[in-house]
Amino acid sequence: MNSLLKEKYGALPVVEAMIFSSENPLSIEKISSILEISKEEVEEIIKLLMQEYNFNNMKGIEIVEIGGGYFFRTKIPYAPFIRKIVMGKESDLSKSAMETLAIIAYKQPITRAEIEHIRGVDSSNPIRSLLEKKLIKIMGRKDVPGRPHVYGTTKEFLKAFGLKDLNELPNLKEIKDMIEQPQLKLLGEDYENKDSENNS
Amino acid sequence: MNSLLKEKYGALPVVEAMIFSSENPLSIEKISSILEISKEEVEEIIKLLMQEYNFNNMKGIEIVEIGGGYFFRTKIPYAPFIRKIVMGKESDLSKSAMETLAIIAYKQPITRAEIEHIRGVDSSNPIRSLLEKKLIKIMGRKDVPGRPHVYGTTKEFLKAFGLKDLNELPNLKEIKDMIEQPQLKLLGEDYENKDSENNS
Repeated sequence: MNSLLKEKYGALPVVEAMIFSSENPLSIEKISSILEISKEEVEEIIKLLMQEYNFNNMKGIEIVEIGGGYFFRTKIPYAPFIRKIVMGKESDLSKSAMETLAIIAYKQPITRAEIEHIRGVDSSNPIRSLLEKKLIKIMGRKDVPGRPHVYGTTKEFLKAFGLKDLNELPNLKEIKDMIEQPQLKLLGEDYENKDSENNS
Repeated sequence: MNSLLKEKYGALPVVEAMIFSSENPLSIEKISSILEISKEEVEEIIKLLMQEYNFNNMKGIEIVEIGGGYFFRTKIPYAPFIRKIVMGKESDLSKSAMETLAIIAYKQPITRAEIEHIRGVDSSNPIRSLLEKKLIKIMGRKDVPGRPHVYGTTKEFLKAFGLKDLNELPNLKEIKDMIEQPQLKLLGEDYENKDSENNS
């Protein structure tokens, strides 16, 4: 093994530890300056780590890049189990509640009328359910006729989805996959989304 | 592969994701009840995960058990690099400051006289240095003659060491190793503890 490779693999565990521990997504520049190794080397190491985690079905966590920063996150299909740690039996969310929650997460602060405009259906049930589960809260009122409530997500929402802050939200494609996948194949069983619009 | 093994390995990534995401150390009982698999199976999976992380030099993080709960933590030798993410150039700590910080972390709230009794030497310099770096703070006064200040660790201390709370502190043997190791062999270079008592 040449000395470049030796150095590269030598820094891999510390890069992993840094990305794991950082409060905020960590940039290649910052890692490079702290470890005093080249940006190219850091980039190469992060690629190796992403191969190891992201494309390996036996890994439950992955490294994600947002705005030039890297961080570890639970893989999307496992999110329902993370919610159960935080919320217990309260964690089951209907498809309509998940959809409403995703819209609120990305568009907050948002009114019920705006949510219903996007979804195309009455959303008072999922909003009430999300309020009860403390995943959303009333953030104030919008300065339009009728002064309707505006909704936003809570700290409990971040905890329940294993996020440090809203910047770590999955992108819309991932959210769509999560809502639309009819069942999660895990543990050799099929975990179906059994809730319907009615019991949301 | 028999069906038991299939189930066992099937649950491994979700157990990894749960331990990674949990705010608090996660017990075998809780994982077992959420996933609806036996405690023995969870135990076996955690053993596999610990083998994969803890005893592999190419891993920068490890799974640690405290009081029956499991959580991921940065491996001890990488702690100085984690501190640099949070504190920048302020992160260098002399051996005496590390020693004083460890005593305060485990014995807080503690007075300067009590620290000096344990260390056997004057500790005003390391205490001042730790106060300046915001790793410790004055928590109040002790109700004894002279009403001396008592010191404790800060939120910045937790961040700088990649800990969620004080329960995640390494045990005293690990701390001792960290303070006493004369040099860290990383990245093919020797990172020496260059500070002396004087510049603490």
